[in-house]
Amino acid sequence: MIKRLFEVDPWKVETHQLDKENRRLQESLTSIGNGYMGMRGNFEEGYSGDHHQGSYIAGVWFPDKTRVGWWKNGYPEYFGKVINSTNFIQVGITINGQVLDLATDPVENFELNLNMKEGILYRGFTVKKAGATIQFKFERFLSVAVKELAYIKIEATVLEGQADITFTSALDGDVTNEDSNYEERFWLEKGHGIYDDGGFVTTQTAENNFGTPRFTVTTAMKNELSGAQAEAVLHEEDFKVSQEYSLHLETGKSVTLLKTVAVITSRDVEDDKQVQVAQELLESAARGSYAQAKEAHIAEWANRWHKADVVIDGDQEAQQGIRFNIFQLFSTYYGQDYRLNVGPKGFTGEKYGGATYWDTEAYIVPMYLSVTDQEVTRQLLLYRYNQLDGAFHNAKQQGLKGALYPMVTFTGVECHNEWEITFEEIHRNGAIAYAIYNYTNYTGDDSYAKNEGLEVLVGISRFWADRVHYSKRAQKYMVHGVTGPNEYENNVNNNYHTNRIATWTLEYTLEQLAKGQADVLDKLAVSQEEREKWQDIIDNMYYPYDEELGIFVQHDTFLDKDLTPVSELSPEDRPLNQKWSWDKVLRSPYIKQADVLQNIYFFSDKYSLEEKERNFDFYEPLTVHESSLSPCVHSILAAELGKEEKAVELYARTARLDLDNYNNDTEDGLHITSMSGSWLGIVQGFAGMRITDGHLSFAPFVPSNWDGYNFKINFRGRLLDVTVTKDSCQITLLEGEALDITVKDQVVRLEDKIKVSI
Amino acid sequence: MIKRLFEVDPWKVETHQLDKENRRLQESLTSIGNGYMGMRGNFEEGYSGDHHQGSYIAGVWFPDKTRVGWWKNGYPEYFGKVINSTNFIQVGITINGQVLDLATDPVENFELNLNMKEGILYRGFTVKKAGATIQFKFERFLSVAVKELAYIKIEATVLEGQADITFTSALDGDVTNEDSNYEERFWLEKGHGIYDDGGFVTTQTAENNFGTPRFTVTTAMKNELSGAQAEAVLHEEDFKVSQEYSLHLETGKSVTLLKTVAVITSRDVEDDKQVQVAQELLESAARGSYAQAKEAHIAEWANRWHKADVVIDGDQEAQQGIRFNIFQLFSTYYGQDYRLNVGPKGFTGEKYGGATYWDTEAYIVPMYLSVTDQEVTRQLLLYRYNQLDGAFHNAKQQGLKGALYPMVTFTGVECHNEWEITFEEIHRNGAIAYAIYNYTNYTGDDSYAKNEGLEVLVGISRFWADRVHYSKRAQKYMVHGVTGPNEYENNVNNNYHTNRIATWTLEYTLEQLAKGQADVLDKLAVSQEEREKWQDIIDNMYYPYDEELGIFVQHDTFLDKDLTPVSELSPEDRPLNQKWSWDKVLRSPYIKQADVLQNIYFFSDKYSLEEKERNFDFYEPLTVHESSLSPCVHSILAAELGKEEKAVELYARTARLDLDNYNNDTEDGLHITSMSGSWLGIVQGFAGMRITDGHLSFAPFVPSNWDGYNFKINFRGRLLDVTVTKDSCQITLLEGEALDITVKDQVVRLEDKIKVSI
Repeated sequence: MIKRLFEVDPWKVETHQLDKENRRLQESLTSIGNGYMGMRGNFEEGYSGDHHQGSYIAGVWFPDKTRVGWWKNGYPEYFGKVINSTNFIQVGITINGQVLDLATDPVENFELNLNMKEGILYRGFTVKKAGATIQFKFERFLSVAVKELAYIKIEATVLEGQADITFTSALDGDVTNEDSNYEERFWLEKGHGIYDDGGFVTTQTAENNFGTPRFTVTTAMKNELSGAQAEAVLHEEDFKVSQEYSLHLETGKSVTLLKTVAVITSRDVEDDKQVQVAQELLESAARGSYAQAKEAHIAEWANRWHKADVVIDGDQEAQQGIRFNIFQLFSTYYGQDYRLNVGPKGFTGEKYGGATYWDTEAYIVPMYLSVTDQEVTRQLLLYRYNQLDGAFHNAKQQGLKGALYPMVTFTGVECHNEWEITFEEIHRNGAIAYAIYNYTNYTGDDSYAKNEGLEVLVGISRFWADRVHYSKRAQKYMVHGVTGPNEYENNVNNNYHTNRIATWTLEYTLEQLAKGQADVLDKLAVSQEEREKWQDIIDNMYYPYDEELGIFVQHDTFLDKDLTPVSELSPEDRPLNQKWSWDKVLRSPYIKQADVLQNIYFFSDKYSLEEKERNFDFYEPLTVHESSLSPCVHSILAAELGKEEKAVELYARTARLDLDNYNNDTEDGLHITSMSGSWLGIVQGFAGMRITDGHLSFAPFVPSNWDGYNFKINFRGRLLDVTVTKDSCQITLLEGEALDITVKDQVVRLEDKIKVSI
Repeated sequence: MIKRLFEVDPWKVETHQLDKENRRLQESLTSIGNGYMGMRGNFEEGYSGDHHQGSYIAGVWFPDKTRVGWWKNGYPEYFGKVINSTNFIQVGITINGQVLDLATDPVENFELNLNMKEGILYRGFTVKKAGATIQFKFERFLSVAVKELAYIKIEATVLEGQADITFTSALDGDVTNEDSNYEERFWLEKGHGIYDDGGFVTTQTAENNFGTPRFTVTTAMKNELSGAQAEAVLHEEDFKVSQEYSLHLETGKSVTLLKTVAVITSRDVEDDKQVQVAQELLESAARGSYAQAKEAHIAEWANRWHKADVVIDGDQEAQQGIRFNIFQLFSTYYGQDYRLNVGPKGFTGEKYGGATYWDTEAYIVPMYLSVTDQEVTRQLLLYRYNQLDGAFHNAKQQGLKGALYPMVTFTGVECHNEWEITFEEIHRNGAIAYAIYNYTNYTGDDSYAKNEGLEVLVGISRFWADRVHYSKRAQKYMVHGVTGPNEYENNVNNNYHTNRIATWTLEYTLEQLAKGQADVLDKLAVSQEEREKWQDIIDNMYYPYDEELGIFVQHDTFLDKDLTPVSELSPEDRPLNQKWSWDKVLRSPYIKQADVLQNIYFFSDKYSLEEKERNFDFYEPLTVHESSLSPCVHSILAAELGKEEKAVELYARTARLDLDNYNNDTEDGLHITSMSGSWLGIVQGFAGMRITDGHLSFAPFVPSNWDGYNFKINFRGRLLDVTVTKDSCQITLLEGEALDITVKDQVVRLEDKIKVSI
């Protein structure tokens, strides 16, 4: 069951309805961000109805004391939370003494429009209030040209009557997190001040007992009113400064308030210099015009779209979906800061916490390799290298050797605290290794794999070698007590994907060790005995397989389940995770997200088409895709297997997951890390892009309800433009040197442009 | 590693050391109770060092809002807590203006003595303070003759110097629980008042959102000072009333304060009558002397000991252990109130919460059948019948039919919230059914099984029939996703014990249905189809069995583990639950408590001696006995198998678990429900008592380090006295009619007394 609040449009997320019942969902879907900071689509003037006020700054977090019913040895002490920070968009408005509040004031001509091409959120409405009819227009953007700067422009025009209007432009640091475990406050005030046309608030995260760094954030504003005479008064109080403009407007007159905000954090600037740096930025901004700032912002978005836009011909819903996903991904992370990663909710909510999940390696890296500079992906890999100490810590917490990358983290240290996930969903460790392979294979750059990457690989391999055990009875190595990608089963034995990615990691590490640089090898000191042990594990790992069905079995006892397919469930049962008890979910055969098929997706060239088909045909009917990360993998495999209808159906779920609120939880924030799935669905699915031993190939087709599509990929210093129509595939080399590629099993030389019939 | 704070003595738990490092442990071990109320061994005058103040009233509890990290559908909304209630033992003492506090005042001749024969806690010491040397003596008991009454007697004698002494006898309702989930207060004040020689405090449990009943408790006191002239002043404040006596004592003079307390709750008396009823009780008590009250109390304890004492000849440690366990069990529950059950910590702590666990049916019933009146056990069964609605609710929460008895409860509704326990440790449901069989088999009274018990059995059977599933592949019924008695493994499939007790329940229910009363059968309406389905499950259940080893396998994949025996672990690894990560514990083969062997214990007559031996020899070396419920079952089996040394070793762990703090957690309170294990170890283990189809038999031996032992059992209206020595077993029929019994495979007629050589 879908819920669609916004109109279908190729470049806009627009509505003409103020939906008070679904205000949180509207807010999520009109979030904006510039990689440095971001916020939900809150209203500047405030809103007294149900909503979720949220502004977030990348890399600024707080270690909230772990809350559990029953402590298990090995649990982390804190859960790192993305924290709500100073509300800097606030501009309170009164009309003839009455507060403007869209929760209670009836409005006309309402318009809310996130322009994805420009990266600007527009809003407008007309309100009759206290004897006046006034039209309001809002513009807001977080500059992608100067990341610390935010712009809010508000224009009011009196259409009828006349009005005394006040604008109270504020910085409000008195904010809390909805998901605080013990209703603790995360911020202390450190200082505030006012000056001509503005002021600042400096807040600092509270002390904590866990030794994690505290953050200081200074938010400064400069206000500029034009079009009317106004009296301006500055106020200051704890956590808050504000500038109140009082003015009078006759019929037909307009006034414009421009609020420019600079946000500076201790991640970049020492505490005692923050106010100065913020003021300098605001002064520098004031030397240019708003129009120039907006132009620079739009130009940078244009540059991003130039490299990464996907055009779909003949399906506006699909078109809007893919652009929305690309827009929100780039708003979250565009690779400028190597200390950051791609959080599950980006700047659109605070659920789940942490900045980094295995989603990055499994879902973000494969897309970012193609749509951003190579260096961006390399930064994502280095991020993990820099957190290797945290991974060693996590393994030690479980009494194990080597490195265990976390489920959820800011620092490398695990934050999550469900034993069945934290301790058991260890396939994630394989995804970290896989991304090293993926990067190296895609880019041809093996410098990471031979250096920093090798340290990561050896750490992970040492973990696997200690985590497996030898079953004397079976004369095989096994991996007991794991949760596979299918989180609807826990604590299973010999999850096929986990066992397979464990030995794959060992194999790949041994290969890289053979090529490693001497100083790295010396540092790592992998003994001959250790290598032999790893080889023994590779040679003697147990993989559940069913001869009769010819499939890899999800885990030891999966086939003992009652294997009634999803199609026989009643609609009332869905989504299972909201309708069924956890007991029933766990015992069911229903798969939350690709598991065996995730392995087949990762290691596509190691499986025959027949194997792929048998496994797909067995597992897809049991998969409920209640994880946002699921449908894309199935869609890509379906495409490869020529199951076009299935591929398209699953693509649609991925592409419009949030726009259509498929999982009924987008009000908490967007599913950022799964947004790459729609891109992968088109490029790896419909266009069949693969890189095998460094060689690029396509096997494209056009879904029957589309007329065609076009995308660009960055590949080894080149920019390729790919257009697929019903009968042909045209590839243009926009930048870089000629290369051989394969299209539909046919090797062709791409010098300038090629066109292959399909 | 054991920690023994008290001296070995057959009837006393006594120490002459005030152990400030282990004050909490001392408090646990000197707890007293009378089934109606109880308390830890706190000091009357208060104690500023680390300790745990705790007084509890049976059946008075609070629904504390559930605290979890990650909510799972099916979790209960609250966790029912045993709540700390008004501290009524408080008598603050000052000497020449200085507060007496054993945490800081050095004392001599310290003595702390729980007299188990009398049920009285004695304490004494001499303190030099502020120019005087004073000897103090304390006596405290909770009357088993009049359950609402508590007596505290304090005597002070000036040995040197002279002293101004104050006694401030108080009722202090301002108490909290250490384990409150969100640091909420559970009590509100409802009223307080003072009158001649005393006062009262009435408190009421706070409102809650869960619709569970609120409780009102009135605690009233009457103080009586003798031996000195004193000025007495009454004080009152919120939650507290007190009476302060000021007096002067010359060298050699003594003063005695007698504090009599009545505790009345809304479980028995309406709120507005509580003060009156309490005062009447105090007046009635005052009409007799303290000596009379004490005598009546001791007489009732003598009566209990007469029926249930176990005498061990030649092993004082064992003697003290068994008496301590019997004493604490009877202090917790002696069957007077059918609305109560046997809580895991009794009145000795607040950890775990809830009043009722499957421990009652599995461990308490088998002992209470022999040592208390038959009606007491019947009450314990009726308790479950009365909570059948809660059990239906619990099953429904999991989306299942029938009745699922809870892990932890006050009302029948589940309180516990770990999915792996709450949803999965469902073998508990079998234990409820087993107790019906056990009661009927032991007593010969089938009236419960045919009436109320049949409703319980059908409810449980309907649950099992819905909880199993049919594996098409194996052509067998299976039970997936369970936790067996061994809580060191979770979410396993086909736990042997669970599968076996499930089909046993179905079988037993079908048998009872054949004998059921017409009106009950009509009400239950078990269809022919349903009976056939149950029979099909009975006939086609899957039981994991290993042909090669000839053992029942704990669950599907148990034998794939690394089966290194416990004996090869390092002492540093123990106890595993404190030293290892949960991940490591779960993947290990180590068994927390009897699992397959629990089944063999329950259904002893269904297994051959060879089967018992093979399973014991396989599982015992893997069992760490880190549950207090474990060693007794193994001890009983070891005894039957002639493994005397093992039987004795495991008996010792059971008998002195708390006295020697084996599990290093007795500071939180005593392990009440496992205390029956030592009795079972002697009677079912060493004496080999069995009841097979109503026939009583013994197969006794004396452990080599004992000279002999004696115990009494109540059996079908008779009282038997059994004395076992190295060479004979003498059984005397103290009360009731003659019967045939078997001793060492020899059937003998017990008319008066028999003696069989062994």
